[in-house]
Amino acid sequence: MTKISIADVLQAHYRIKPFLPKTPVLTSSTFDAMHGRKFYFKAENMQKTGSFKVRGALNAIIKLQESGEPVKGVTTHSSGNHGQALAWAASKCGLKCNVITPHDTPNIKIRSIEGYGASVTLCEPNPTSREETCQRVTMETGYSFVPSSDHYDIMAGQGTIALEFLDEVPNLDAILIPASKGGMAAGIAITAKSLKPNIKIFVVEPKGKDLERCLIAGERLWPNPPQFVDTIADGIRIQQLGKLTWPILLKLAEKEVFTADNEEIMRGMKFAFQRMKVVIEGASGAAVAAAMSDRLRKMDDSIKNVGVILCGGNVDIDQLPWYKGK
Amino acid sequence: MTKISIADVLQAHYRIKPFLPKTPVLTSSTFDAMHGRKFYFKAENMQKTGSFKVRGALNAIIKLQESGEPVKGVTTHSSGNHGQALAWAASKCGLKCNVITPHDTPNIKIRSIEGYGASVTLCEPNPTSREETCQRVTMETGYSFVPSSDHYDIMAGQGTIALEFLDEVPNLDAILIPASKGGMAAGIAITAKSLKPNIKIFVVEPKGKDLERCLIAGERLWPNPPQFVDTIADGIRIQQLGKLTWPILLKLAEKEVFTADNEEIMRGMKFAFQRMKVVIEGASGAAVAAAMSDRLRKMDDSIKNVGVILCGGNVDIDQLPWYKGK
Repeated sequence: MTKISIADVLQAHYRIKPFLPKTPVLTSSTFDAMHGRKFYFKAENMQKTGSFKVRGALNAIIKLQESGEPVKGVTTHSSGNHGQALAWAASKCGLKCNVITPHDTPNIKIRSIEGYGASVTLCEPNPTSREETCQRVTMETGYSFVPSSDHYDIMAGQGTIALEFLDEVPNLDAILIPASKGGMAAGIAITAKSLKPNIKIFVVEPKGKDLERCLIAGERLWPNPPQFVDTIADGIRIQQLGKLTWPILLKLAEKEVFTADNEEIMRGMKFAFQRMKVVIEGASGAAVAAAMSDRLRKMDDSIKNVGVILCGGNVDIDQLPWYKGK
Repeated sequence: MTKISIADVLQAHYRIKPFLPKTPVLTSSTFDAMHGRKFYFKAENMQKTGSFKVRGALNAIIKLQESGEPVKGVTTHSSGNHGQALAWAASKCGLKCNVITPHDTPNIKIRSIEGYGASVTLCEPNPTSREETCQRVTMETGYSFVPSSDHYDIMAGQGTIALEFLDEVPNLDAILIPASKGGMAAGIAITAKSLKPNIKIFVVEPKGKDLERCLIAGERLWPNPPQFVDTIADGIRIQQLGKLTWPILLKLAEKEVFTADNEEIMRGMKFAFQRMKVVIEGASGAAVAAAMSDRLRKMDDSIKNVGVILCGGNVDIDQLPWYKGK
């Protein structure tokens, strides 16, 4: 029994809809011809702040404000998309925001968070310092902590991607979803499976996450403490799924997981840049790589229409991976 | 008196609509805040084949077929977007196509033309060889020649951009349009001025085109034979407007022309990559640069809503201009 349902996703949809554009669904006849099915790419890279993260952040903040308790502001720790998303969402809701960020975070991301009106508190670049600093700032400011992924309000917000996607492309047979802690994958899984019980939810991971083995065993086989996977897809480098997302994905996702190495991620990114004319980050490149993979090619012909989540576009264009070593 | 009217554009619209997606209109609240007006970016970089060119090419081909005369195939000479566009359009219409291309054209563009099923004939990289080779191939094959820009059917096709744009954003006060020979600018000018006589049509040029002096004098002051301007915006490097587009733009465009140098074009491109998450080529970067310019900033406050044409996205992502010299 999960504590989140399609009703929560619909409520999130009505909460965040006034603030966020519907992202486009892209297609490529060239890609379809090369890979033998019809593919639909949900361009969350073109969402406000450059990633889907703003859906969950905004839902969580508005829900906090709806609770009736006074909200002084919000905090989180993030070196990436969630920090920018929360800063933007807080500014839209008239709330103060403090983002705890490792001091080795690229300057452009820090400037972007500050550009949305949030304060940045630097910490050491390790999980312990991030959490401790965030707890201290949360205590000192009296702000409310908004996690990046493993929270039902976040999942409900991310689930709105699937509402929009299936409204526009109702005949999807499967969706390929990059996962880090799995908040987006869980939110999409709950939504899509409620609307279309036979749709297949495939998780996409960077090499080294080893999710398939866990799903087949039905056990969290990952080493502790939680680790980062070595991948150019920096948005999905956390190895372990969250404590709340894990049972949802164990129940709703296919056991077959799509794994992409750096070379494949880069090829996926390049196709999107060159043919679809969109800027995507590594995590999105992994989803494109899954769509291009032999594993999908060998699957059943009943999977005719495949959704691919281009989850974000926050990549450093001065350091694109195909320039490494040039 | 021009030989093209809004009726031709509407006819083109109904001809090409079954084949082409409506391109999205992008916005950026960050950009608006930085530049003090509201900007709407028409993403023709996301059009089939990566540029607006396919609108005119498809209109010209279908009109040829409608004429009742048998059409064996089509030819053109192009080192860039028009060649890809014509090849794609010909394949959709079941016609053969031969594109004459200078032998120094990047391999990726040649492969793309061939990928759409067209033949490629190589020529020397100069205007004379291009035209002579194209005439020879056109004679030998009995195919019909479809020019890239300076033709009423091409202009009518490109004018459909403005139909779509004003349908989605009716309150535009001005449109910034990159121009090479000016087929797109003329088509948009005819369309937009017919629908909104007070709208301002601003041409955007690379430094060295010197269009403003010509428009003010009402004379074609350019040196002959036609030259290329030295710019990273390779899609708009032809210095002279066409013979047919010139009187249209002389009549309908503002005398004030927006000029962008390489540094400004690159800044425009980088904003689009970084904040709007779209891949654009130099010519589109020039339009973004015009939107960012001091010249626009100093203009009248009555220009509240500004359209910007992102005309194409065919840039070599292995050779992005900000990597030059790295």
